[in-house]
Amino acid sequence: MTGTQPRAGVVSKERLTGLTIDALLALGLTQTDATDAATILVLADLFGLRTHGTSRIESYGERLRIGGINPTPSFNPEQVSPALYRLDGDNGVGPLVGFRALQVAMKAARSNGISCVFVRGSNHFGPVSPYSYIAAQQGFASIIGSNATTTIAPWGGTDARLGNSPVGFGVPNPAGRPVLLDMAISVVARAKIRNALKRGESIPSTWATDQYGRPTTDPKAALDGFLLPIGGHKGYGLALIVDLLAGMLSGAAYLTHVKSWLDDPEEPQNLGHFYILIDTTVLGNSEWLAARMTDYAAILHGSAPVDPNAPVIVPGEIELNQYDRQLAEGIDIGVEQLAMLEAAAVGKYQTAAG
Amino acid sequence: MTGTQPRAGVVSKERLTGLTIDALLALGLTQTDATDAATILVLADLFGLRTHGTSRIESYGERLRIGGINPTPSFNPEQVSPALYRLDGDNGVGPLVGFRALQVAMKAARSNGISCVFVRGSNHFGPVSPYSYIAAQQGFASIIGSNATTTIAPWGGTDARLGNSPVGFGVPNPAGRPVLLDMAISVVARAKIRNALKRGESIPSTWATDQYGRPTTDPKAALDGFLLPIGGHKGYGLALIVDLLAGMLSGAAYLTHVKSWLDDPEEPQNLGHFYILIDTTVLGNSEWLAARMTDYAAILHGSAPVDPNAPVIVPGEIELNQYDRQLAEGIDIGVEQLAMLEAAAVGKYQTAAG
Repeated sequence: MTGTQPRAGVVSKERLTGLTIDALLALGLTQTDATDAATILVLADLFGLRTHGTSRIESYGERLRIGGINPTPSFNPEQVSPALYRLDGDNGVGPLVGFRALQVAMKAARSNGISCVFVRGSNHFGPVSPYSYIAAQQGFASIIGSNATTTIAPWGGTDARLGNSPVGFGVPNPAGRPVLLDMAISVVARAKIRNALKRGESIPSTWATDQYGRPTTDPKAALDGFLLPIGGHKGYGLALIVDLLAGMLSGAAYLTHVKSWLDDPEEPQNLGHFYILIDTTVLGNSEWLAARMTDYAAILHGSAPVDPNAPVIVPGEIELNQYDRQLAEGIDIGVEQLAMLEAAAVGKYQTAAG
Repeated sequence: MTGTQPRAGVVSKERLTGLTIDALLALGLTQTDATDAATILVLADLFGLRTHGTSRIESYGERLRIGGINPTPSFNPEQVSPALYRLDGDNGVGPLVGFRALQVAMKAARSNGISCVFVRGSNHFGPVSPYSYIAAQQGFASIIGSNATTTIAPWGGTDARLGNSPVGFGVPNPAGRPVLLDMAISVVARAKIRNALKRGESIPSTWATDQYGRPTTDPKAALDGFLLPIGGHKGYGLALIVDLLAGMLSGAAYLTHVKSWLDDPEEPQNLGHFYILIDTTVLGNSEWLAARMTDYAAILHGSAPVDPNAPVIVPGEIELNQYDRQLAEGIDIGVEQLAMLEAAAVGKYQTAAG
């Protein structure tokens, strides 16, 4: 907000954080819990990941009000081995559970060089990159993932039996920007197929199958079918590994045992996450790592681009550019979402949601 | 070898192991080192991964003889934090360095619940699945990767600046087969493009670009160009993460700093690897894990297949089927490779290689 006229639907980080905390307080969370959850959701918006940021107050709020999510969870991290923890999320709001798991993982990695926290009893925890970013700012490389409601068919199969599980990675750079990679395992998100349908366009046959598991170029058939994973059997395998770590080993639900928050909003989902953190500060001094990371980015940026207007980027650059710009100019969450948050912040969210 | 006539080029596990050890002894390795390296290479053949198994004695041998690989490395694992180690491979044969790193990682994970070993100063370490398999048999889940000579362009770039880095995962099942996923980040291997060229066929535009970074369906142009990663920018990101862990954080070479063993066979490659192991035996008793893993496979197998002749499989099934069959019937390495190994085993490999 640099002295120019405020734009509609654009808010400062401070105002967005305040509204989000107030909305979560109105939904029954404690001040500390609301603050921790808001940290993740606001970072998501700062990164430009609006579908996974404070807009989620709407769906989280719906489930909190009908008892599908527990507003006052208690956390008792269980140290099963010096560097390995289990955490029951007690069916709390996902970004709160995720934030607390990250704190446990950072402390354990600082003591042991590497740590793993397996989380069960959780819910949708937002995007991965806010967690990777917080970890990277403290010098931790990270591998973080969650399982999700089933939307993908096993490779060669014909029904949804695994989730489009998100997984993310971070590598810190003491002198500059971390590398951040945050991805789902599908080639594209369903929204891209819905957009093609709206525009009356066909889709590449690599995006999705019809309901019989056959690749299709028809967006309507694709929406009745299943998203395809990247690299066919390779992405299928990656999605399973994320679910095996996040769901199976954590003691959470996995594959078809994960409840859908759309079909059963009042039921605990028992989603699982995993946080693997490595303390890079013990591998060398910060000059050593900074020099290597700076060289790393320079090598990638030095590849002449196919399209002169689209230089090669390092993963995370898009999000971190958005972060810098929105921190300076305000966060564009749109007029409708701002109205939703303002209503939710004074406990009048139901009216606003219609 | 079940009493039937031995087939040409088919050998028992014992004979293949003996030949491989003898070949490595003839190339200057100690008995212990030769035995450890042979364990990985023979497992690769048992899994049916012949291009990454004992056939590599040929290229390893060439580099050992000209001093490109050190036949008698010494290993001094450095514990930088309770669960985090660095290991300098001292330019030893890759599968030997990899086997020793795995041993360090297993011991550290048993003590700490999770461990990480960063390896530098290494060479091509074979496929990942033998390491994941050995770890899984001891109850460890694993994430293991290596970097590789540059063959892939950054996403949107026009020259080879990163490797087709292999990464693998394993999850143990105390009552049956582990899940094993072992993959490179490219959509296909270059061999598949060479085969299309031989047959005069075009290739899908998702496999590779020409030398200008433009997707191509011409196999000849593709062989002059670059392999494409799975999922476009997603696979590009994954390849970077593998290289950042295996090469950058480990203290090894990374990106274009990795020497090509084809162009500079007499130079140390300074490849890097990482081994992240999680001790699943502290998460629950073996009945708990066995029940969940068995249920897991059953859910996947239960999806009706698109093609009735191609049932849904769990990653690792193809390799483990090969393992069972070849352990019983002998390992098919082919007549030529057997002749190479027999010559190498008596120190006459150069003659055999022509």
